[in-house]
Amino acid sequence: MSERPDQNPLLTPLAASLPSTVPFVGPEAQERAAAAPFKARLGANESTFGPSPNAIRAMRQSVKETWMYGDPESHDLRAALATHLDVGMDEIVVGAGIDGLLDSLVRLTVTTGTPVVTSAGAYPTFNYHVTGYGGTIHTVAYTADFEDPDHLIAKARQVGAKLIYMSNPDNPMGTVHTAATIQRMIEGLPENCLLVLDEAYIELAPNGTAPPLNTSDSRVIRMRTFSKGYGMAGARVGYAVGHASLIGAFNRVRNHFGMSRVSQIGALAALADQDWLADVRDKVEASRQTLYQIAEDNGLIAIPSATNFVTIDCGRDGAFARAVLASLVAQGVFVRMPFVTPQDRCIRISCSVPKDMALVSKALPKALADAQKV
Amino acid sequence: MSERPDQNPLLTPLAASLPSTVPFVGPEAQERAAAAPFKARLGANESTFGPSPNAIRAMRQSVKETWMYGDPESHDLRAALATHLDVGMDEIVVGAGIDGLLDSLVRLTVTTGTPVVTSAGAYPTFNYHVTGYGGTIHTVAYTADFEDPDHLIAKARQVGAKLIYMSNPDNPMGTVHTAATIQRMIEGLPENCLLVLDEAYIELAPNGTAPPLNTSDSRVIRMRTFSKGYGMAGARVGYAVGHASLIGAFNRVRNHFGMSRVSQIGALAALADQDWLADVRDKVEASRQTLYQIAEDNGLIAIPSATNFVTIDCGRDGAFARAVLASLVAQGVFVRMPFVTPQDRCIRISCSVPKDMALVSKALPKALADAQKV
Repeated sequence: MSERPDQNPLLTPLAASLPSTVPFVGPEAQERAAAAPFKARLGANESTFGPSPNAIRAMRQSVKETWMYGDPESHDLRAALATHLDVGMDEIVVGAGIDGLLDSLVRLTVTTGTPVVTSAGAYPTFNYHVTGYGGTIHTVAYTADFEDPDHLIAKARQVGAKLIYMSNPDNPMGTVHTAATIQRMIEGLPENCLLVLDEAYIELAPNGTAPPLNTSDSRVIRMRTFSKGYGMAGARVGYAVGHASLIGAFNRVRNHFGMSRVSQIGALAALADQDWLADVRDKVEASRQTLYQIAEDNGLIAIPSATNFVTIDCGRDGAFARAVLASLVAQGVFVRMPFVTPQDRCIRISCSVPKDMALVSKALPKALADAQKV
Repeated sequence: MSERPDQNPLLTPLAASLPSTVPFVGPEAQERAAAAPFKARLGANESTFGPSPNAIRAMRQSVKETWMYGDPESHDLRAALATHLDVGMDEIVVGAGIDGLLDSLVRLTVTTGTPVVTSAGAYPTFNYHVTGYGGTIHTVAYTADFEDPDHLIAKARQVGAKLIYMSNPDNPMGTVHTAATIQRMIEGLPENCLLVLDEAYIELAPNGTAPPLNTSDSRVIRMRTFSKGYGMAGARVGYAVGHASLIGAFNRVRNHFGMSRVSQIGALAALADQDWLADVRDKVEASRQTLYQIAEDNGLIAIPSATNFVTIDCGRDGAFARAVLASLVAQGVFVRMPFVTPQDRCIRISCSVPKDMALVSKALPKALADAQKV
């Protein structure tokens, strides 16, 4: 630690011990390195279908309000969400995406050595925050490309975990558990263990995937976002729903004036346009089918997805999949892939408009051929 | 702590000990409580002069890009700032306003019991973060409505402080120290003590107020914002400039994907329009003169300001000033005031357009009369 020549002496021991690596490199950094823009941006599960036109209009009109801070309570958005979800306003907190909410949640609950449980290869930003607050990460393997509730629970019991992180539908594999399975998981939680249920992709999953929101149950916190189905990744609006005693605690640590005013107004308009969301669901489903077909055309197996991306098994090991990915990126198609074996035999491609699907269809055979040569 | 009936058992001991109070209540909350909108919004030193029309245009045009995450490196904005300030890109970090940057900085440097020094009645959000990470706040008094560099340094030496927080120009008093004074303060810092120099209002201060940026000096970090002079409070864009070893450490804890894409683009356009900033400076100066005159017309003393607000001494105690403020608010004029004696004999009014100044001119005599009756 202190051997790092660039280490600043003012850092706390914990800060000094943290790695400089980041969970994700942005596509812009790759474009700068390649000195060429991507032709298709399919690596971050952004929605090329975009936000509701009503949200676009509301944001355009509200730009002139940028001189004003956003409402630190995000009152109007929380009120609309409370109505939409049939929960209390004091059971919802709005933050700068699920990433920002995970930061606050981990800060509230994790300190040096606090054990948490997640799946090996699940969302790395959760791990980033746990490490950042000194917690200890315990992992269990995926089972057949699904996060495994029974194994997560068993591990949590074994290590005395305070948090279990699980995404449903899952990122990066796209698989999903039923509401009944999730509810059973909640019922099986050890005492004093919180399920952090990341539902970033829930709007794109089959109806009924989410178990009913029961905010009287303090054993679970649900996290959702306007970044995926609602198509507003750049606005940075997420929300968490849970027991008022936990949600209220966010007010002790969060950046109260951290929300963009334009983003708050955009999210409010996006939420009100459920017809647009339904249309996006249809477009995502069509794109999934296209990606399944592209995989099949190339002799590969696509993993059935409940999200706005499709994870494709390249049929060999991680080195091979990384070579496929490298060729796709070199051909101007930004995609990503799972980090951990055995999921890293796959690449992950975001659903998108037909023009982008055509690019994938054209680039994938060459990528597979390129990878064979490596 | 654990006696709080609403206390969630999952909180860390530190989180459980934190107060539920927040640094500032937003004007929207006051409007909701009063069931009436403010006629003038002059309490948060937002800029009614607004951002550059070029920034407005750039943000409007970029709304359609909201489906994309912002660049996690804020590369283009940092590159433009580096050129503008003649420092290296690795010496600048962009974050969600100075508030967000203070959060990261305090997290990197403060742990349980870490002593820090600030002035009694200075920016409460710094204290919020220090308390939030378990640090110990030591204060010194203002001297004649100025933050007192000598006393801050002496106190830091006495308590072994790791951080000294000072704003220049000062908020909430509007007073300012010369570059020479600040530079002398830097030279007098105890070893292993960082000066956190909050320059939120620097663009509105007399030319030459900021000492030269010397990023080879690891004893100081400078924080600036697009919220005040640039008129973009609702966009949430701030930046910190300092030694690369400290700035680089922000990457270990910050929310990499936390910036709104529209805000990044807006800030870039705002920075490029220095003519607009110069025009805002002129308008702010005219408004300051108006506020000085309004104070004089009411037999009050205005404190000369180097910011976009004027702090007016109401001539009696805190109870009287609070009564003046309450009447102004009841008349639809949102203003704030210092929290701490003896500065709380004052009210603080943001500079604004002539229409708002006319409202202040009309409301203040009645407010003073109302306060006499209390």
